[in-house]
Amino acid sequence: MSVAQTNLWFTELQNDNLTIGLRIEKTIHSEKTEYQQLDVYKTVQYGNLLVLDGCIMTTDKDEFVYHEMLAHVPLHTHPNPKSVLVVGGGDGGIIREVIKHPSVERAVLAEIDGRVVEASKMYFPHIASGLSDPRVDVQIVDGIRYVEEHPNEFDVILIDSTDPVGPAVGLFQRPFYESVFRALKEDGLMAAQTESPFINQDLIRQVYGDVRATFPIVKLYLAYVPTYPTGMWSFTLGSKKYRPQDVREVRVHDTKYYNRDIHHASLVLPNFVKELVGE
Amino acid sequence: MSVAQTNLWFTELQNDNLTIGLRIEKTIHSEKTEYQQLDVYKTVQYGNLLVLDGCIMTTDKDEFVYHEMLAHVPLHTHPNPKSVLVVGGGDGGIIREVIKHPSVERAVLAEIDGRVVEASKMYFPHIASGLSDPRVDVQIVDGIRYVEEHPNEFDVILIDSTDPVGPAVGLFQRPFYESVFRALKEDGLMAAQTESPFINQDLIRQVYGDVRATFPIVKLYLAYVPTYPTGMWSFTLGSKKYRPQDVREVRVHDTKYYNRDIHHASLVLPNFVKELVGE
Amino acid sequence: MSVAQTNLWFTELQNDNLTIGLRIEKTIHSEKTEYQQLDVYKTVQYGNLLVLDGCIMTTDKDEFVYHEMLAHVPLHTHPNPKSVLVVGGGDGGIIREVIKHPSVERAVLAEIDGRVVEASKMYFPHIASGLSDPRVDVQIVDGIRYVEEHPNEFDVILIDSTDPVGPAVGLFQRPFYESVFRALKEDGLMAAQTESPFINQDLIRQVYGDVRATFPIVKLYLAYVPTYPTGMWSFTLGSKKYRPQDVREVRVHDTKYYNRDIHHASLVLPNFVKELVGE
Amino acid sequence: MSVAQTNLWFTELQNDNLTIGLRIEKTIHSEKTEYQQLDVYKTVQYGNLLVLDGCIMTTDKDEFVYHEMLAHVPLHTHPNPKSVLVVGGGDGGIIREVIKHPSVERAVLAEIDGRVVEASKMYFPHIASGLSDPRVDVQIVDGIRYVEEHPNEFDVILIDSTDPVGPAVGLFQRPFYESVFRALKEDGLMAAQTESPFINQDLIRQVYGDVRATFPIVKLYLAYVPTYPTGMWSFTLGSKKYRPQDVREVRVHDTKYYNRDIHHASLVLPNFVKELVGE
Repeated sequence: MSVAQTNLWFTELQNDNLTIGLRIEKTIHSEKTEYQQLDVYKTVQYGNLLVLDGCIMTTDKDEFVYHEMLAHVPLHTHPNPKSVLVVGGGDGGIIREVIKHPSVERAVLAEIDGRVVEASKMYFPHIASGLSDPRVDVQIVDGIRYVEEHPNEFDVILIDSTDPVGPAVGLFQRPFYESVFRALKEDGLMAAQTESPFINQDLIRQVYGDVRATFPIVKLYLAYVPTYPTGMWSFTLGSKKYRPQDVREVRVHDTKYYNRDIHHASLVLPNFVKELVGE
Repeated sequence: MSVAQTNLWFTELQNDNLTIGLRIEKTIHSEKTEYQQLDVYKTVQYGNLLVLDGCIMTTDKDEFVYHEMLAHVPLHTHPNPKSVLVVGGGDGGIIREVIKHPSVERAVLAEIDGRVVEASKMYFPHIASGLSDPRVDVQIVDGIRYVEEHPNEFDVILIDSTDPVGPAVGLFQRPFYESVFRALKEDGLMAAQTESPFINQDLIRQVYGDVRATFPIVKLYLAYVPTYPTGMWSFTLGSKKYRPQDVREVRVHDTKYYNRDIHHASLVLPNFVKELVGE
Repeated sequence: MSVAQTNLWFTELQNDNLTIGLRIEKTIHSEKTEYQQLDVYKTVQYGNLLVLDGCIMTTDKDEFVYHEMLAHVPLHTHPNPKSVLVVGGGDGGIIREVIKHPSVERAVLAEIDGRVVEASKMYFPHIASGLSDPRVDVQIVDGIRYVEEHPNEFDVILIDSTDPVGPAVGLFQRPFYESVFRALKEDGLMAAQTESPFINQDLIRQVYGDVRATFPIVKLYLAYVPTYPTGMWSFTLGSKKYRPQDVREVRVHDTKYYNRDIHHASLVLPNFVKELVGE
Repeated sequence: MSVAQTNLWFTELQNDNLTIGLRIEKTIHSEKTEYQQLDVYKTVQYGNLLVLDGCIMTTDKDEFVYHEMLAHVPLHTHPNPKSVLVVGGGDGGIIREVIKHPSVERAVLAEIDGRVVEASKMYFPHIASGLSDPRVDVQIVDGIRYVEEHPNEFDVILIDSTDPVGPAVGLFQRPFYESVFRALKEDGLMAAQTESPFINQDLIRQVYGDVRATFPIVKLYLAYVPTYPTGMWSFTLGSKKYRPQDVREVRVHDTKYYNRDIHHASLVLPNFVKELVGE
């Protein structure tokens, strides 16, 4: 090893039997918020790294995949999204992609932990950049409650949650999807991050079933996220009227991952994933 | 941690700044062959694991992705592959997929290290299963030399190499691709594994350029391989006549990852990968 | 890293904030006994390694320190030990040292888990060697109960326990030391392993207090054990009559660590350890 | 794991087959000096940690052992040390102990890397505290050359080097000890840190032989250093006239490890260490 390297590693136990390790140049920030442990590191491989309760949330170098894919697949599926809600997503990455859509008039961010928003503005300015847009309304609130209290209000709801442990558990349960259904307008649609088909089969099967029981249209899609377990990440889309397969044109072009062909390719599932969700 | 878990981990330094760790139940085999260190472990997450010189080669649970995708995309691109050469690939996984094609009359495996073949037969019987097929000819030879000595002989050549360090370096260089070109019939084609677009940009750019300088048709395609760095794996296809985009029907259906739609979706590249190879 | 090395590591979380890692050549044995997880590994640095419930018990290369020091300091303190009890210590290392004393007529091993004894005979024959001596009586029993049921029987009792978690907790509590007092003859003495003064201060203070409340004479002594946390290991000796400081001659000479001067040097405490136990 | 813990670890490869890991709260400082990589971390277990080129130098919580033992054993061996040289030791810990001796009139620190001195003053003020004493002369120079250029000048020379790799190699070689001999007055003496008897046998044997060939009196002594490999650390003392065994009284009492009995106990060697150096 070169003598100029540190021996400092961030190691995430992705599950009981799997780890990812990132060499760290230095810690940038560390605090215990009201809700969780929040750390920011500078990694050698991926630039700055945001960690909540020991789990990788996002990095400078690969954040674009997750943020573009959770935002643009559902937003392009809707012909004219004006009002969008992001549940979680305090780093602002989803909001940044949402406001690239010219039709969007209002984007609400419902994040429970205001410290995540502040840390992102400070240490990930290119991710948080959209939060100061005049169309954006940052609400530091319990997302589950916010959704319950705003029926029939949104064209698109995007659920950018942490892993289904601790406070985020409710975001992966059927009553929440039913509540999301009510918060959407009559032609609205939602998408949620739903972990890896290689190691979270039970969760994906359950969420997919719950969304299918709630929305007339359900579709799983995939993207490559290097810093999430296995690198294959799934998203579950539930829609009242529009189908992601029907998208012909895309409106947003300043992207590093998403494009029209990727939109459709992400909907294509390997056989073992098709079997998993019964498509 | 549950008291029934071991504290034994296999940790691969994927590059200087990135690791993957797999909890190990036990070692199954360990030897120093004439060419390399060969280890077989039982992991909790992915079943048996084959390691060469400290690098993950394949695991029981995710081997199907790599093997199906390196084999079926090029083999379906050829309308009638009869004679196929696999360079490297001593575990037999590529051969197993090759002989699923009914048109194949002869499949040669040119592997330099006979111990890899033996270890695979012993500890990965479901991967090595095709090696005893009467159409298969296992040659324990230097693949580079074998290719040089067999001009105008193959319809498809598949390069299933280890990482571009040590003995495998030559398999990533232009003289080898030119030699492969000569070993192919006049409408032949090749494919090679070419690492991750997230961290091996220089290698991919170089190989893609070399293949493009050698073959009239070149195409990069992608698959999700959880145990390889970043989980996004690339393959580079070079062809004298046929284009992978033109495949209409697929002939092989007993697959866990590959299908006709995946064939085409794998050819679709995210913007940052398109830029990388200039597509 | 040399290509001939494995990437397999045994990593013990010594406490929440401290680890030791040993490179592993291979697993030798792994089983879930009635009482605990039992693993044997071959390490590169220390030879074979015995692990119970994820904690390092002993290794080929450094076992002599712990075994000699837990046995010979108390045994030499007694002028004529004839009857000796070892509680725990299923690997046999303490027994091997005990029977080096020519005065010993009977050495009982009270180990709760017979599988530890069997594994040691198989994989650590040089440690288990004394178990077949005719003076040795191996009892697969609950040591706490065995001590209770044998009053006034032993000259020396040695407590070779695992860490004070799970089944071994009782071996670090005052009722047990009182029971040991009763099992000893009127001039008997005991010694127990009592963890590291650098990180287990509370435990040492408590055990030392409990032994001092039970025995007229108490003494802490130290030895270097590389594979135990911090490398500084303590032992607490409780005695009815004899003082370890008074030893003039030693009777056992085929040792790799212990000698007469080491006997006395091990009783000398650094200032911070003196303060810890109030000596 | 508690959610309030970070997943950040400093892991030192102590040799090819052995690691120590310390959980890190945060990085405090990181720079590439003219000579080496210098990092300061806050650990959970041991407080602040100073690292040079990836190797643990010292920590808040255990520094006292090494610094007291490298200083006080030789300084008490000399009946009246007035002029003392420390080679290396830029953190100031040895100097802090040296000036506790009332006889000392002048203490020179010859450290090659001025950044180590500055970092210690900033992040380890209790270690660097002695550097501002009027008797102390801090020289940012090559220690080997400094020794060569100051013949017949010192009563005691203490060699507080990094590991015998890279720039420190010369400090472990015979020409340097001969140079130290010349820099000492006619009744002078030296001591050097000489790694672990459990894993650095060749080095200890060689240094011990070189010092014995240079000085009429040579003695190895030991101390417990938890953050150095194996926890057992050796020091080699070479003397023209005085013997460490002859010390009757100690002059320094505000110590956490060292005392008169520890002085003598540290000179007592386990059998395997006696054999190693032929004592």
